[in-house]
Parts: sequence; C-alpha cells; structure tokens
Amino acid sequence: MTGKSNAFYAQSGGVTAVINASACGVIQAARDHPEEIDHLYAGRNGILGALREEFFDTNLESPESIAALMHTPGGAFGSCRYKLPNIATSDREYTRLIDVFAAHNIGYFFYNGGGDSADTCLKVAEVSSAMNYPLQAIHIPKTIDNDLPFTDCSPGFGSVAKYVSIATNEASLDIASMCESSTKVFILEVMGRHAGWIAASSGLAAQQQGEPPHIILFPEIAFNRESFIAKVKDTVEEAGYCVIVAAEGARYSDGAHLSGSLQKDAFGHQQLGGVAPGAGKYA
Amino acid sequence: MTGKSNAFYAQSGGVTAVINASACGVIQAARDHPEEIDHLYAGRNGILGALREEFFDTNLESPESIAALMHTPGGAFGSCRYKLPNIATSDREYTRLIDVFAAHNIGYFFYNGGGDSADTCLKVAEVSSAMNYPLQAIHIPKTIDNDLPFTDCSPGFGSVAKYVSIATNEASLDIASMCESSTKVFILEVMGRHAGWIAASSGLAAQQQGEPPHIILFPEIAFNRESFIAKVKDTVEEAGYCVIVAAEGARYSDGAHLSGSLQKDAFGHQQLGGVAPGAGKYA
Repeated sequence: MTGKSNAFYAQSGGVTAVINASACGVIQAARDHPEEIDHLYAGRNGILGALREEFFDTNLESPESIAALMHTPGGAFGSCRYKLPNIATSDREYTRLIDVFAAHNIGYFFYNGGGDSADTCLKVAEVSSAMNYPLQAIHIPKTIDNDLPFTDCSPGFGSVAKYVSIATNEASLDIASMCESSTKVFILEVMGRHAGWIAASSGLAAQQQGEPPHIILFPEIAFNRESFIAKVKDTVEEAGYCVIVAAEGARYSDGAHLSGSLQKDAFGHQQLGGVAPGAGKYA
Repeated sequence: MTGKSNAFYAQSGGVTAVINASACGVIQAARDHPEEIDHLYAGRNGILGALREEFFDTNLESPESIAALMHTPGGAFGSCRYKLPNIATSDREYTRLIDVFAAHNIGYFFYNGGGDSADTCLKVAEVSSAMNYPLQAIHIPKTIDNDLPFTDCSPGFGSVAKYVSIATNEASLDIASMCESSTKVFILEVMGRHAGWIAASSGLAAQQQGEPPHIILFPEIAFNRESFIAKVKDTVEEAGYCVIVAAEGARYSDGAHLSGSLQKDAFGHQQLGGVAPGAGKYA
C-alpha cells in the first residue's frame, strides 16, 4: 500500500482487565506513524460498529484520554459477542465490511479478541484479497485463557493468573484455619474450557511442595475419579485439609465434562460451570 | 476481681479478613495492662483449644509478631466451627471450660466470633457465675454479615463491603461493554442469610441514580416475581442491561428461599446458594 490511509480498531468478545491497554497501544502506535495512518477509528460495539458504520474517531481524543485507557476497566468502545456467518455459506457480511472500509479509506484493520476473532480477521483478509482491496488485517490477541495458537502469553491472562493465585492462597489460609472442625475439602472452579493455564496459575499460591493447592484439575488431563478421591483422602490425612482447583473444562477420559449444562453461548459452545457447586460457600 | 490473672482468647467460626487484627488489638491491650493481665493465652482452633488445654502463650511472641497480626490473613491461632451443646440438656463442656480456666488462673475470656459465639460467651458467663468462679467473659464481634444485635458495625463487614462494591462495579462495566450482543442480565449472588448489609454494600458501586446495580434483593424484603421481572425488563429497555445483586437469603413472602439445598452446616443452618446459577459465567 502506498500513501496514507485510515485504520479501524474494534474490541471483540468478553473484555479482559487489560483490553483497553491494548487499545491504548494501538492508538499510540498509530499516532507515532502519521505518515502511514491518518484517522484511527474505533468501532462502537466491536465489529458491529463496522457493519453499521458506527465509528469513534480516536483522533478527537486528547493524549491524556488515550493514556488513561491503560487503566480503564471494561471495554472503552464497547465489545460484542457476534459471530460473522460461515464464509462458505454467506460472504455478505464480509463484503459489507470491505465496502465500509473502502468508503472510509481504511487500510488497516485491527481486531482485538480471542480465537474466534483471529478467525474472523483471517476471513476478512481473505475476502479483501479476493476483492482486490488493499487491507492489512491484524489480530491483537486477547484471552484470559492464554490458549491462542502461536501466542506465548496473551494479554488478559496475567491479570487472571494473579487473581486466581491470590484467591487460592487466601481461601487456603481460611480453610487451614478451621479445617479441624469444619470444611476439609475446598474446590475452587476457574475458567478454562480447553486450556488449563488459569487452573495452573493457582499453583503460584504454593511456595513449597505440599502447600495448597494440593490438586489441580486440567481439561487436558483426563479425570480419574478413583485416583482423585484417593489423593483427596491422603491429603486430608496428612495436611488436615485439601484444596482443589478445577478448570471448568475438566473432563473424564470419554470427554464428558465433570459438570456441564445444555446451555450454549452465542458461538454454540456448551456453557460449563458447576464442577464446584459449593465453591465460595466455605466460610 | 483483685490481683492479676491470666486471659484466654479464641477465634470462632469462619475467619474474616480482619479477625487477626482483632486478635492484635486484644493482645496489645492486654500488654498495656500488665497490672491486671499476666499471660494472654490463645486457644488452638478456637474454643476446642480450651476444652483440650491446647494454648499458645502469646507473651512469648515479640511485639513485631503481634503487630504483624494486623495484616495477617486467615486465623492465626486456628478457628473452629464447633457448637457447645445446649446448656439446658448438658453443661458438661461448660463446666470443663471453667475447670480449665481455673487450672490456668484465667480471669478474662475473650471470644472472637459471630452470633453463635456471643451466645456461647453468655453461657460461659452464666456457668462461671453459677460456679462462683470469677470470670469476665467478653465477646469480640466478628461477622461479615454485620448482623450482630447491638453492634453498629462488625469487624469483617467493611472488607466484604469493599470487595462486593468493587466486584459489582467491575462486572457492571464488563456487562455494559457488550450488552448489545451478549449478556443483558447479570446476577451477582452474595452472602447474607438473614441480613442484607452485604447485598446493600453493592450499592456503593453506583455514583448516580440509574447506575448499576439496578436491583438489590434483600432477605428482609419479600421477593415478588412479577415486579422483579417487570423491573428487569424496564431496565434492559432503558439502560441496555440490568445488574442484580441478590443476597443468598433472598426469599418469597412465604419464607421460601429463591434457592436453597437441603444441606445443613454444623450449626443446623440450611446451606444456601444458587440464586444465581450462572453467576461468574457472564464473560
């Protein structure tokens, strides 16, 4: 691409503690390259803002406002949980996106989200190429799960890892305080449908071998009821209590989740939760 | 009482974020009055430590260690969930307590806990009086629920109020960020069996009229399904989303809880939880 064009940025999916920090980075970097990027537009409510031509012109914001994004919770421009249709059956929305981008001279498409957003980004790139529209489609990683392919550490994971390790530590101290005459087994259920990174981060609570969490249940390792119960019994016998951290995606060897409902989210994923029905009720 | 005697301090029930700060206050105050209090013993695992004569002599700890209790999580000496028997049917354990106190020249009994502990404290005072044993039985309040009679603000409530108001604020910002295409109704379930103070503290998240939480469900106010649903619908229509904070003890006018299981805890209280089965799953 020659000459300068505009850029479009959108947030997608569940917002993390740091998604606005990613927005801040994109906007500040764009401002550092005025020879290539003129206006940086942010979509209102994610990709929906592009489909509807609802843009925020971030050029109108002061450097102070943009810097403040670093510490702003929520999703500053609005996010969405919206899945573009299967491109094999309908490319109508993809071509609509390219039409909108063309109307606003968008040469750069920054899409800030997780795996589904990366997939959308790829399809937008493919459609723009097929339509001979010059577009750089760039995915900005975001997941708390830290499970994006080819991405070593995803923005969003660090905050959750810190939260989970502290929560595990504090809950363990509470359980230890009164395990002799009260709760001896405590299960903390954490997010993680397919990836055990969040569950694993609870291990940061342990300073030494034998300290809680005593057991971590990963989606990647098949749950074995007998060995689990044996380990819980041994731990209660030795330590007086047992702290377990379970990923919501923990499953048996046949793939059945320890707990799952029939609810599905907007992406058709099974809604999990309920591994630890009494979690949070220990006190 | 004349001359100096020893004191006994014990922690009871679920530990709060500040129960060790109360311990710190008791120990430092005792040290300020050496003419009245000689040794201050802390019971290991609460009142069980008295029944079993398992004491920590806090006099052996440095002033620095005692000061550090102010910021120490968990229950430093161990707590318990142990209910002394009904004194009308058996006073054996009460007289055992007095016997132990007499053996260690305990003139002051500090019991740090909630409503059940206050009741135990009263009974110990009555038994000591009936046995002509000179004992000052003093209850140190502790509940996160802030529901102790004659106690304006209970240590333990403040930390929870801060946590709940911040959690409500952060979750509301997340919901607002993507309500157009995702979750529009979010329910945060908080503790509070009979008292709505914790649920009420979520209201601190709102700076202005109309800001979340939009609805708070109290145990003290009968739940009306129709008016609740109407309010949720109106709020979603006006604000785009609706944040509800529900006390676990929220109930219908006939006293039935919105959700409750048949499990009972050590005190025979019904184990609540499940008002918001999908809480925490909004992202």
